[in-house]
Amino acid sequence: MCDILIKNAYVVTMDPAGRVIQDGAIAIEGNRILDVGPSKEISASYNAREEIDAHDMIALPGFINAHTHIAMCVISRIGRELKDRLYRVYWPMERAWIPEDCYKASLMGAAEAILFGATCIVDHYFFMEEIAKATIELGIRGFLGHTIMTEDGPWVGRAEFEEGVNFVKRWKGKHPLVIPCLAPHAPDTVSPDWLMELKEIANEQNVKIHMHLSQSMREVRKVKGPWGRGARSPVDLLHRLKVLGPDLIAAHCIYIDEYDLKLLSQTGTNVVYCPSTYALGGTYASADKMMKSGIRVLIGTDARPADMIGELRAAAMTQRQLTGDPSAMSSKDLLRMATIEAAKALGLEDKLGSIERGKLADLILVSMKKPHMNPRFDPCANIVYNALGSDVDTVIVDGKVVVREGSLTRCDMGSVVKLGREAAEALTQRAIEIDSNLRQLIEGSHPP
Amino acid sequence: MCDILIKNAYVVTMDPAGRVIQDGAIAIEGNRILDVGPSKEISASYNAREEIDAHDMIALPGFINAHTHIAMCVISRIGRELKDRLYRVYWPMERAWIPEDCYKASLMGAAEAILFGATCIVDHYFFMEEIAKATIELGIRGFLGHTIMTEDGPWVGRAEFEEGVNFVKRWKGKHPLVIPCLAPHAPDTVSPDWLMELKEIANEQNVKIHMHLSQSMREVRKVKGPWGRGARSPVDLLHRLKVLGPDLIAAHCIYIDEYDLKLLSQTGTNVVYCPSTYALGGTYASADKMMKSGIRVLIGTDARPADMIGELRAAAMTQRQLTGDPSAMSSKDLLRMATIEAAKALGLEDKLGSIERGKLADLILVSMKKPHMNPRFDPCANIVYNALGSDVDTVIVDGKVVVREGSLTRCDMGSVVKLGREAAEALTQRAIEIDSNLRQLIEGSHPP
Repeated sequence: MCDILIKNAYVVTMDPAGRVIQDGAIAIEGNRILDVGPSKEISASYNAREEIDAHDMIALPGFINAHTHIAMCVISRIGRELKDRLYRVYWPMERAWIPEDCYKASLMGAAEAILFGATCIVDHYFFMEEIAKATIELGIRGFLGHTIMTEDGPWVGRAEFEEGVNFVKRWKGKHPLVIPCLAPHAPDTVSPDWLMELKEIANEQNVKIHMHLSQSMREVRKVKGPWGRGARSPVDLLHRLKVLGPDLIAAHCIYIDEYDLKLLSQTGTNVVYCPSTYALGGTYASADKMMKSGIRVLIGTDARPADMIGELRAAAMTQRQLTGDPSAMSSKDLLRMATIEAAKALGLEDKLGSIERGKLADLILVSMKKPHMNPRFDPCANIVYNALGSDVDTVIVDGKVVVREGSLTRCDMGSVVKLGREAAEALTQRAIEIDSNLRQLIEGSHPP
Repeated sequence: MCDILIKNAYVVTMDPAGRVIQDGAIAIEGNRILDVGPSKEISASYNAREEIDAHDMIALPGFINAHTHIAMCVISRIGRELKDRLYRVYWPMERAWIPEDCYKASLMGAAEAILFGATCIVDHYFFMEEIAKATIELGIRGFLGHTIMTEDGPWVGRAEFEEGVNFVKRWKGKHPLVIPCLAPHAPDTVSPDWLMELKEIANEQNVKIHMHLSQSMREVRKVKGPWGRGARSPVDLLHRLKVLGPDLIAAHCIYIDEYDLKLLSQTGTNVVYCPSTYALGGTYASADKMMKSGIRVLIGTDARPADMIGELRAAAMTQRQLTGDPSAMSSKDLLRMATIEAAKALGLEDKLGSIERGKLADLILVSMKKPHMNPRFDPCANIVYNALGSDVDTVIVDGKVVVREGSLTRCDMGSVVKLGREAAEALTQRAIEIDSNLRQLIEGSHPP
């Protein structure tokens, strides 16, 4: 007996052998994968409370979106063609947050992520308590950290530091869907003292650190300047502070040189690549080179819509344009980055990232029914080169079906979108009251 | 009285004034747009046989996919990570075509294109008679040319030349959905004599020429070599043969220099940019630079899935990564390229490319109902930065609804996909019989 039996699927397991089962089945009991194998064999072994016929569907481990800010869905659609959007739009808008809006925005952001096949998001933001509430409500797994900044950002100061640490203490082991971490913002916005302090707390609490690294020239300048303590780069600064290493999830690493690359590789630091964010903003990171230098590279959507399939294709496009090599960032590499490699970076490879007996049942079914997914060749290539986020038909997190036939099971999508729109409306109004310069930017994002 | 009244839409007209109507309506009579304006006004003026409530939808002119090969959907999913795919996979596979398979493949390819919001495809391929049959059956407009090659390709010789010319004569003015053109393959595969001859026929018949230009280094080498008649590049060769000009739709122009750029600009030649094909293959074209040099640049999906929205985003990503400028290829520029600018290039700007009184009713509705399309700011930005091809809800071609709520109205999608799969199966089998080297490539595209 089992709870859910998925059968007739094209199963891409992402297990150590890279097993692909053309007509496969997956048995789920509680929140665990009880068994996986050929449909005939598994169907004969288990009676199920619920059967899912996954004919013409690819089953694969749910995507781990390794760097995102789901609440930003209501901010990040503004000023897309603007330089310095972070400082000119995001930070001023973020100053206007109140918890209620952040919660509503996060509900819509979490819905977006889950509909696009993420079963786990790695989120780093202000008001993380509200975001945790929203992720639990939607049923998505969250690897969550409350952003800590010493100075220079929208929400700064010691109270935020305390909240960041308390968030970890409050949530550790409390809820199956919430894995807390520490989230200092970036090397230019958090003082070296605080970074060292946070690293100590991370060691004590046995949690990871998730932060931005080498994301802007402003950061590079600030670290190399009077603040720099002799560091030659943001990466070098973190190295001197002993923050680099396998317990760090470092988003971006855009502005790095050969020396930085070596440090990241030697220390086993995990780097998150967010290709479409960079490309649309006119920048890029050398992700293929990082990968080939032995760095574990993950994929995140940052403040772009949380469409991991779109992001995988963007990664292939941007890296191949950069390298001139059509085999750079292969579809198999990319799918591993979005699943098992991400699980390893989070220290959760015993629980997440592949479809294997005993692992948590976090998995998705991607439909191959429409013309653009046909004819059916290699399923990894089919997902990376042809699929859309909307081809995600079914999402199972912690053994529960949270998306079925492309629809949320726990909330009405229309209601979630309504809340998101309300949050956007309230936030933009308040932001303009605080900073009237924003009016033109926000209204410029509306039609004439 | 009118046939169809679309109301409550966010109408992006693409008219000369760039008018956007926040709560707009469109009245359609027969195959023409009878009127467009504010919902209240238009609703009061017309009773309609059919009303479409486009609340939370963007109405815009249907996409014109300016360079594609719909039949290739059954070939182009193979060997994605391979160098020289054109010569190692496509041409050997294409030798195995029989008309029946090409027709079936084209049905699936046309379905793909129309579901993703193209109301017109500019297609250049072998067996064009079969493709015309499929496009008419699906109800999509086709700007179609039968590929002519002198040598060196899968289907070459004088019989193909004659068929290319006869295709034009047969279809000129015959069917509202088919606009024929002449389609020599490329400067390296069609002899200069034939190119001159075709240019004369094009002038006589008053049709456009659609061909590949500067798409590979092989082409550049061949034109500059013994074949070159002193031409310094493929663009220069076409200039000397008097083929460049506003009546040429030149796909690609990847390998061009400043001199070529000047020739293309001065002659008013139309260039089609296919960003994701290039990027995934490790190349790029300087489309932003072309546009800024005054060249009319259009957007095509080539042998990638015919998802024009994905292609618009790919264009923004690849050009911005190339230029470092987040305002390069703005969303407004991109949507113009995919609609009104394309119509101008085809010489059909009096009929297509914008939602204006008297134009043909070729238009689409894109849903903003899902989280990733919210909150709603500028609709052009919303389409380019956030939408998926699957957000296309309704497609109207020549006044007829061919897609409704994301489903084909004229065929069953499952049946079309089945035919496409059959074609792929038959073609790959036959291709392996002809060229056993293909076995490994095709089977390598299947899982182990």
